[in-house]
Amino acid sequence: MMKKQILEEKKEYLEQLFDLLKIPSISADPKYNEAVKKTADWIEGALKKIGCNNVELFETAGHPIVYGEKFINTNAPTVLVYGHYDVQPPDPLELWENDPFEPSIKKTQLHPNGAIYARGACDDKGQMFMHIKAVELLIKNKLLKCNVKFIIEGEEEIGSVHLEGFINNHKKKLKSDIIIISDTGIHSLDNPAITTGLRGLSYMEVTITGPNRDLHSGLYGGTVANPINTLCKMIALLHDENNKVNIPGFYDKVEEISKAERKKMNSNATPEIEFQKSISISAPVGEKEYTTLERKSIRPSLDVNGIWGGYTGEGAKTVIPSKAHAKISMRLVPNQNWEEISELFERYFKSIAPIGVSVQVRKHHGGDPYLTPKEHNAYRAAEKAYQEVFGIVPHAKRDGGSIPIVPMFEKILGIKTILMGFGLDSDAIHSPNEHYGVDNFVNGIEAISQFYKYFYELEIA
Amino acid sequence: MMKKQILEEKKEYLEQLFDLLKIPSISADPKYNEAVKKTADWIEGALKKIGCNNVELFETAGHPIVYGEKFINTNAPTVLVYGHYDVQPPDPLELWENDPFEPSIKKTQLHPNGAIYARGACDDKGQMFMHIKAVELLIKNKLLKCNVKFIIEGEEEIGSVHLEGFINNHKKKLKSDIIIISDTGIHSLDNPAITTGLRGLSYMEVTITGPNRDLHSGLYGGTVANPINTLCKMIALLHDENNKVNIPGFYDKVEEISKAERKKMNSNATPEIEFQKSISISAPVGEKEYTTLERKSIRPSLDVNGIWGGYTGEGAKTVIPSKAHAKISMRLVPNQNWEEISELFERYFKSIAPIGVSVQVRKHHGGDPYLTPKEHNAYRAAEKAYQEVFGIVPHAKRDGGSIPIVPMFEKILGIKTILMGFGLDSDAIHSPNEHYGVDNFVNGIEAISQFYKYFYELEIA
Repeated sequence: MMKKQILEEKKEYLEQLFDLLKIPSISADPKYNEAVKKTADWIEGALKKIGCNNVELFETAGHPIVYGEKFINTNAPTVLVYGHYDVQPPDPLELWENDPFEPSIKKTQLHPNGAIYARGACDDKGQMFMHIKAVELLIKNKLLKCNVKFIIEGEEEIGSVHLEGFINNHKKKLKSDIIIISDTGIHSLDNPAITTGLRGLSYMEVTITGPNRDLHSGLYGGTVANPINTLCKMIALLHDENNKVNIPGFYDKVEEISKAERKKMNSNATPEIEFQKSISISAPVGEKEYTTLERKSIRPSLDVNGIWGGYTGEGAKTVIPSKAHAKISMRLVPNQNWEEISELFERYFKSIAPIGVSVQVRKHHGGDPYLTPKEHNAYRAAEKAYQEVFGIVPHAKRDGGSIPIVPMFEKILGIKTILMGFGLDSDAIHSPNEHYGVDNFVNGIEAISQFYKYFYELEIA
Repeated sequence: MMKKQILEEKKEYLEQLFDLLKIPSISADPKYNEAVKKTADWIEGALKKIGCNNVELFETAGHPIVYGEKFINTNAPTVLVYGHYDVQPPDPLELWENDPFEPSIKKTQLHPNGAIYARGACDDKGQMFMHIKAVELLIKNKLLKCNVKFIIEGEEEIGSVHLEGFINNHKKKLKSDIIIISDTGIHSLDNPAITTGLRGLSYMEVTITGPNRDLHSGLYGGTVANPINTLCKMIALLHDENNKVNIPGFYDKVEEISKAERKKMNSNATPEIEFQKSISISAPVGEKEYTTLERKSIRPSLDVNGIWGGYTGEGAKTVIPSKAHAKISMRLVPNQNWEEISELFERYFKSIAPIGVSVQVRKHHGGDPYLTPKEHNAYRAAEKAYQEVFGIVPHAKRDGGSIPIVPMFEKILGIKTILMGFGLDSDAIHSPNEHYGVDNFVNGIEAISQFYKYFYELEIA
């Protein structure tokens, strides 16, 4: 019944989602502050429209948090839905096929029924919106038996900087039995999976300063430590010849996975050749003695996310810049602690600075790795819901990405999280041409609504 | 007599120079094409006003070349003056104390009579304009006994891309006995020097391509060769542990300087501690077993002039970019050949690319190193002129910078060049807050006008 209704309403749902996707809620860039606020207002309106109570927009020192709830009764289990309405910056703009904030549906080989192309289509406006629609449907059909609370924030892409304070101040309001989040993915519509592991994150920014001003590279070339060359040398020292992270102590607490578990995990892996083809690389490159799947799930990693210094415009400028900068992040696995790893990074990076330069290290944000509880009723309810919608039992998988607020929720509220994601690896989140399959969107709404049914049954039983 | 007249006219001269400095003739950036054209028109007008004949603006596929001449008689020696009216991009703009195109005179400890702060104040509008004023004065006073030809181009800062074609097509027009250029410097007003050596230049741009699109660093971190990390590793391999350039064959043809000559050269050097202080570095860094003076004059060098890739905006973005880029230039010494060195660079750089990425190398431009003829009448005339104005015999020095058109003039026209520069190392050319001492400007005009007198006497004798 639900499926039919969703398909009937699909056009209307997509139109609503397009409205939401059109607002450029780029939380990282202060130029878009007004758009971010407008998006929060939009979410506030949407929650009111589906029948939520106590809908409120909580201001923070940054972007607002939207809260809303649907109360059924005190004996019913309570589900807290978390999502975010902010998006990543869309650059490089020239690589987008359509304006990132003018959504467009395109049919592709992978998405014969079309995919929605827009920044935030998958991460996380599209996935978050499925929850609003699923709860709306349940309310309409008088089938909602759980209490539902929504908390939709606008700073996930910049490290959820004000969420912790909010949670600390509203522990009672947020009390619930489980948190569900749709900000992860499945392998494919034929091969669904539920993410049970997330990597942690430590995001750093470094600055190398040499001379007190930019110098002419003719008059000074060869006499001073060039901050760019120096930064490159230091970054080169962050990995060893086996592509292991070279920071002393970095691997000390990394969880060892048994051979048997690794074998089982690899049996579900995409073949390496398909992985290579999907991003047009000549070879996968990573930590020696691990597979691609392992490298992005059970092993930590370090990547430079941005680098800049000197003249980067058209043509040539013969300059030795005073400063060079890089943004560097590390993905962490159980039982690494992000604050400890940030410390280790800072200590090592400063220790490898050669003479003639000074080094500044700034910690952006981070989060610990997380394993979700496979024994929890909510996990079993999610499993049943996926099975019903996709026709196959979903397997558990570990993801390479990070959702730092998941371990934070557990630490502050003592509540576990289940990750009910419906995206695909190929959705190009954080990249140009981000998209989200229309079928993923439709199946997601259905699976979420089924989840509430099974979760109620298992909890009440 | 000349000195008195220059001081009387100083205010007027500076006002004219300010007019010229106000036009943002940034040749590297197409946004400024109109300003570059306007500057060429300004020079054309200035040459006409001082009484030059055959003043003409020669269009090229890029920016125009201004030509003008003052003919005295067929038996008189002919001097060709070269200069450029284009300037370097002014960024980073936030480090300028005044708008780079709103000239301002400021008194400093080094310049008690003031210095002109503006992009191009020294390089090369200020120095080039001294020649126009010197010739104007000589014409006014009926003291000009040499024929003079001016060739002022608008593409020096982008490698004089169309000058070679122009010279090849106008060999007869440019026929002369010597070329003089003011685009170099002296140690100080108390310690004048004439540059007799220039380093060559080879300017490259490299691009590393990994995956075919930007990737999420969580989902992909640890599985692919990150183009930024890879670029850094490759740049780190361009120098060895003694700060020697690591490119095979790079030093093969480098001119060996005798111990005696090195000793003499170092006796004129600024003390290392003063050098350190002048740019606030904790230590000079360069090729082992050479002094700072040697490192920037008789030894070649390699510097990254710009690097960019990934997310460089505010805040954090967790991306593995598809591409990373760097601009890399090498300064060359006699007898290195810039085209050969560019080849060696390209071959080596491609050879060190690890698996998983592709490498593109683009040659921007270059020029050979040069030694000016100290035995030439024009050098002796310049020496006498400096001695008269500064009260001390100038010594010969080798510079770290490059003026690639100097060896080109000799190759195509067979004419030698004398470098009559009046700037200071501290003028911050190519940097924020470029400036040029008012005394340097005044003394320069005087020395240039004296040069014509002595050159005529020595040539006719």
